[in-house]
Amino acid sequence: MTDFVPTPTLPAPDIVRCAYMEIVVTDLARSREFYVGVLGLHVTEEDESTIYLRSLEEFIHHNLVLRQGPVAAVAAFAYRVKSPAEVDAAEAYYKELGCRTERRTEGFTKGIGDSVRVEDPLGFPYEFFYETEHVERLTQRYDLYSAGELVRLDHFNQVTPDVPRGRKYLEDLGFRVSEDIQDSNGVTYAAWLHRKQTVHDTALTGGDGPRMHHVAFATHEKHNIIQICDKMGALRISDRIERGPGRHGVSNAFYLYILDPDGHRIEIYTQDYYTGDPDNPTVTWDVHDNQRRDWWGNPVVPSWYTEASLVLDLDGNPQPVIARTDASEMAVTVGADGFSYTRQPGGEDKGFKVGAQL
Amino acid sequence: MTDFVPTPTLPAPDIVRCAYMEIVVTDLARSREFYVGVLGLHVTEEDESTIYLRSLEEFIHHNLVLRQGPVAAVAAFAYRVKSPAEVDAAEAYYKELGCRTERRTEGFTKGIGDSVRVEDPLGFPYEFFYETEHVERLTQRYDLYSAGELVRLDHFNQVTPDVPRGRKYLEDLGFRVSEDIQDSNGVTYAAWLHRKQTVHDTALTGGDGPRMHHVAFATHEKHNIIQICDKMGALRISDRIERGPGRHGVSNAFYLYILDPDGHRIEIYTQDYYTGDPDNPTVTWDVHDNQRRDWWGNPVVPSWYTEASLVLDLDGNPQPVIARTDASEMAVTVGADGFSYTRQPGGEDKGFKVGAQL
Amino acid sequence: MTDFVPTPTLPAPDIVRCAYMEIVVTDLARSREFYVGVLGLHVTEEDESTIYLRSLEEFIHHNLVLRQGPVAAVAAFAYRVKSPAEVDAAEAYYKELGCRTERRTEGFTKGIGDSVRVEDPLGFPYEFFYETEHVERLTQRYDLYSAGELVRLDHFNQVTPDVPRGRKYLEDLGFRVSEDIQDSNGVTYAAWLHRKQTVHDTALTGGDGPRMHHVAFATHEKHNIIQICDKMGALRISDRIERGPGRHGVSNAFYLYILDPDGHRIEIYTQDYYTGDPDNPTVTWDVHDNQRRDWWGNPVVPSWYTEASLVLDLDGNPQPVIARTDASEMAVTVGADGFSYTRQPGGEDKGFKVGAQL
Amino acid sequence: MTDFVPTPTLPAPDIVRCAYMEIVVTDLARSREFYVGVLGLHVTEEDESTIYLRSLEEFIHHNLVLRQGPVAAVAAFAYRVKSPAEVDAAEAYYKELGCRTERRTEGFTKGIGDSVRVEDPLGFPYEFFYETEHVERLTQRYDLYSAGELVRLDHFNQVTPDVPRGRKYLEDLGFRVSEDIQDSNGVTYAAWLHRKQTVHDTALTGGDGPRMHHVAFATHEKHNIIQICDKMGALRISDRIERGPGRHGVSNAFYLYILDPDGHRIEIYTQDYYTGDPDNPTVTWDVHDNQRRDWWGNPVVPSWYTEASLVLDLDGNPQPVIARTDASEMAVTVGADGFSYTRQPGGEDKGFKVGAQL
Repeated sequence: MTDFVPTPTLPAPDIVRCAYMEIVVTDLARSREFYVGVLGLHVTEEDESTIYLRSLEEFIHHNLVLRQGPVAAVAAFAYRVKSPAEVDAAEAYYKELGCRTERRTEGFTKGIGDSVRVEDPLGFPYEFFYETEHVERLTQRYDLYSAGELVRLDHFNQVTPDVPRGRKYLEDLGFRVSEDIQDSNGVTYAAWLHRKQTVHDTALTGGDGPRMHHVAFATHEKHNIIQICDKMGALRISDRIERGPGRHGVSNAFYLYILDPDGHRIEIYTQDYYTGDPDNPTVTWDVHDNQRRDWWGNPVVPSWYTEASLVLDLDGNPQPVIARTDASEMAVTVGADGFSYTRQPGGEDKGFKVGAQL
Repeated sequence: MTDFVPTPTLPAPDIVRCAYMEIVVTDLARSREFYVGVLGLHVTEEDESTIYLRSLEEFIHHNLVLRQGPVAAVAAFAYRVKSPAEVDAAEAYYKELGCRTERRTEGFTKGIGDSVRVEDPLGFPYEFFYETEHVERLTQRYDLYSAGELVRLDHFNQVTPDVPRGRKYLEDLGFRVSEDIQDSNGVTYAAWLHRKQTVHDTALTGGDGPRMHHVAFATHEKHNIIQICDKMGALRISDRIERGPGRHGVSNAFYLYILDPDGHRIEIYTQDYYTGDPDNPTVTWDVHDNQRRDWWGNPVVPSWYTEASLVLDLDGNPQPVIARTDASEMAVTVGADGFSYTRQPGGEDKGFKVGAQL
Repeated sequence: MTDFVPTPTLPAPDIVRCAYMEIVVTDLARSREFYVGVLGLHVTEEDESTIYLRSLEEFIHHNLVLRQGPVAAVAAFAYRVKSPAEVDAAEAYYKELGCRTERRTEGFTKGIGDSVRVEDPLGFPYEFFYETEHVERLTQRYDLYSAGELVRLDHFNQVTPDVPRGRKYLEDLGFRVSEDIQDSNGVTYAAWLHRKQTVHDTALTGGDGPRMHHVAFATHEKHNIIQICDKMGALRISDRIERGPGRHGVSNAFYLYILDPDGHRIEIYTQDYYTGDPDNPTVTWDVHDNQRRDWWGNPVVPSWYTEASLVLDLDGNPQPVIARTDASEMAVTVGADGFSYTRQPGGEDKGFKVGAQL
Repeated sequence: MTDFVPTPTLPAPDIVRCAYMEIVVTDLARSREFYVGVLGLHVTEEDESTIYLRSLEEFIHHNLVLRQGPVAAVAAFAYRVKSPAEVDAAEAYYKELGCRTERRTEGFTKGIGDSVRVEDPLGFPYEFFYETEHVERLTQRYDLYSAGELVRLDHFNQVTPDVPRGRKYLEDLGFRVSEDIQDSNGVTYAAWLHRKQTVHDTALTGGDGPRMHHVAFATHEKHNIIQICDKMGALRISDRIERGPGRHGVSNAFYLYILDPDGHRIEIYTQDYYTGDPDNPTVTWDVHDNQRRDWWGNPVVPSWYTEASLVLDLDGNPQPVIARTDASEMAVTVGADGFSYTRQPGGEDKGFKVGAQL
């Protein structure tokens, strides 16, 4: 069922971590108010069309670029590689895969040097770079530390119709799977993949794609995330809190999903676990386990499964969205499906969430 | 529309605070596992039919009595009064109101002395006592401090069909209203009333009653509440997490609602505010304000509005439940009612919660 | 040994709580930077000579008044009473005690109405008022909530040479002792006294007085206090962190002591316990118990015992300071006194703090 | 001044992370009470002479081995390498350095396979292994989660007389320096070195050595560390709290140092920062900066500089301790040295900690 993914013969570029995302927003001032005014990201520099933002503990130029444009979309998922030579490796690697690539020695965004962007086999705009301007790392600037401070870019999350195909592509690229969601029929609904020593640098969510599901920033503690909710309540934009806060089953992180003014989804995330050992155990969750997405069994809202952001090709046009043909996680789990459970079936009765009997 | 409540001529008893609840459970061992094993309440003493529990910082004998019985119900909402003489005052006060009363100088539960129990005008079994055995206050027993430690009994919550009638009764009894929920037609949906210097010792929730909506215990910090959720997930009883965690609009407290094995609802609660000044401002919320029940706009599950525990009369028989005839909060707010809002109507568009568009 | 304190025949005024302190600062702009810029107190109003500040959850006009003046000192310890008539009661009460009083129906500070100030028997400038302007209670203004947010005025602390004398005076005035520190010779070193349902509204610390030891503000959680330390580090004013953070033995609160630009001491404080029952147990600590002042046994720095702020008489002149003649807590506990212990003497060996063997 | 360290020609073994420490304790039952009873480490297995402990999120067999023996000391600092072949690489590497090595294919401790132990050029017993038994990772066992839960082994800290020499040796071995402390005369007082993507896997503290300064475990949040202090207070062993809690300048972590029954020092540590980028900026601190060791300027107790644990050679005998000849950090910073500062000298006056004017 998985489409053909050519197996590369060239070595994959040595990726360090997810480093920044470039997103197109339709009203830059309104987006600035959200990312700077509400979320407190720090402005490295800005001009009339573009804002470069970073989290507190970042020392590279930016983790997020907001660019004014006509259609809300994602222009790049950018990864840092281990050395300048790895940018060459990335370019060669994708060329061998038959992908369109574009190399810019001066970089695609300010503060970033020699880079290559590609339209990857799943249709996503990936970027690889090493050179970057170092900026002040604000780690101990507690005079700037807000109650809901975002301290690191944690990960990307991508929607793709064929998760096993995407997983093979990312494993070839050097990512390792930390967790996934499957069913007993062998359908894979989602997978989490990492380069740095956390649960993920990116994840694949099964659905119509290529689309961007969310980009995630980390806080130090759980109360920082609660403050973000409280502040959105105070600003009377609680309708932009989409899901959470809660504890993920997958990753064990404490989480929150919110929506920016264009509907781009942001996750706020804290306290997953170390994955740096070569034999780090992979965790597989049953799609019918009510605690996989939320450890407390709180239901996933339908929009979380259906909504996502368009992604752009290298000309800046939205990539067409291909429908998922495998079973959808929402279809098999939301509502009284009769199969989801809180406790393992057999032995004990299945438990259903009392509050969810709509 | 409010039924007649006689205005007492005798002085009301001087109530200090809500002190304990006595509940009937149908399987004492199973309830012990929940209250002691899961929630970590401390056993003051126990025998074959009864368990006396207290929170960490309590110095009176108990805050919760679990008694084995045939029907899950509440046997008493017990308040502590300021002196022994106030028990006499309570007895006289309710006799004048025409209520059935029962006085026991040896107390109705262990560790409590001279007490009076009454069937109050709303049909609830109220108890008033002063005398109690002092026990070790465990405040600094950090060797016993669990990650989700409950430190104080905070309040009761009662379901009654006619909230204004109940409110008049409790105000006559010396309670003061800190917050309430109304609509523009003058319907009152709920009211919060206090004696001690917090938002409430008890609250009235409009609905079929008399029934007990919940009893609430306080933690020190928000992470303690999150741990209770995490632990219930680990024990695979997340289906007993009914609602939350979240931030209340009313009271501003961080909250969680869980269900014991008999379906008695427990709230875990932290960080409301000081109400001890005589002119403490009363806060009135519009029933259509999406943030009144949850400051983040997360929806209230229907069961939270419809389910509650029976209460017993002084013979131990369940009180009959009278239906609410005023508009129900659930009916006017859950689902696409077209009237609820996140931002004040006018000026800005109403906002609806994206995830709630079922 | 205790000086004569006349026993009043008139009823004491019914005090609700400590409400605000007026302090004289020598450089108003520098003090504003500290209280507003560093600590984030909220400005109710200000003019060239005076700034009126309040904590997040306050609804009366202010909790702290900074007034420019030539000598750093405290002009008033102000208590709120239960009704306008209680201001009359206070005036009569102190007149009977032979104290100088001054009544101003327009108030001594903006936003406060009819008040009386007195030079009390211990030499402190006490104020009593009921009338006050209500201002916006910022409880749910999480858009203003800083990472180290101060949410309530918690208590005062006063230095006085004769603690038992001061205690009798305050008990006559209606305060109740929650905790104290004594030795086996009957010397009292300190006492904590409350009106509201916390451990104290004011405390007496034995030493040369009358002087103001500190004024304390509460945070919601412990991490808020840690953030204040972190921010003072970032601003390179860590030398104004005098003691802590730590856990008090007395009161069980998590604490921090910092110094304002004039050396006025501020405590940041969170999570003591409920004291509202009439028979709330009084806790007496042995002065030789190493954990009484800091539950973790961290030493009290000498300046904490010796330094304090002058207080003014009703003409605005500093009150003369009378030396303590009883044993001083510092003398009997700091350094290798040979009597202080971590564990109860007898049975087990005494324990000494390893890091403290200077 | 730095002793000769031969530059290896063979490739260094590819180290993943610090993995476990084996320590000799003189009373196993008493140590068990401390590590299991007080700190809550989880027992993987135990017998009459040895206890194998792990932190909550660990999946390898153990992070700490307690072995009964006659002299309190450290038997091994064990690192995990990336593959079985890297154990061979380690053995060859140290042989080339002229170090004594011992290879055991069955491992030196239970649950660990093929390993090599060496007496390294600094005199420390280092171990390298890949093979290990996987055990249950307790990450989501919140039913076992204590209020002061230790979730990861974070790092080792070693005392050595010549820090630059030790640094060269560890950099040759593939470690990277994240931070160090120097003075303007070129003396290095301490250095922090990492393999995994945190501030360190081990650190070098200048002093008489080889000795073990401490082993550190991480918690999720700061309140977990405060709970450990509170619990030690409740158990009346606060005299085993040596230093802290506080915020480190170096590493930015929140920390606590405590002493086990043999005087082995344990650090509890949380929230340093990501160091995984190849050009992660190195931070150098001035030894006279009062905030380098504690960001809040709280003084380092002398014992922290002078006390440390012996280490064993491969025969199990304590290594002789060589005195440091460079200036000692304690000598140049503790007491009224006249050179340490809170703010950068020049421009502003130096600030001294008020409470520290002993």
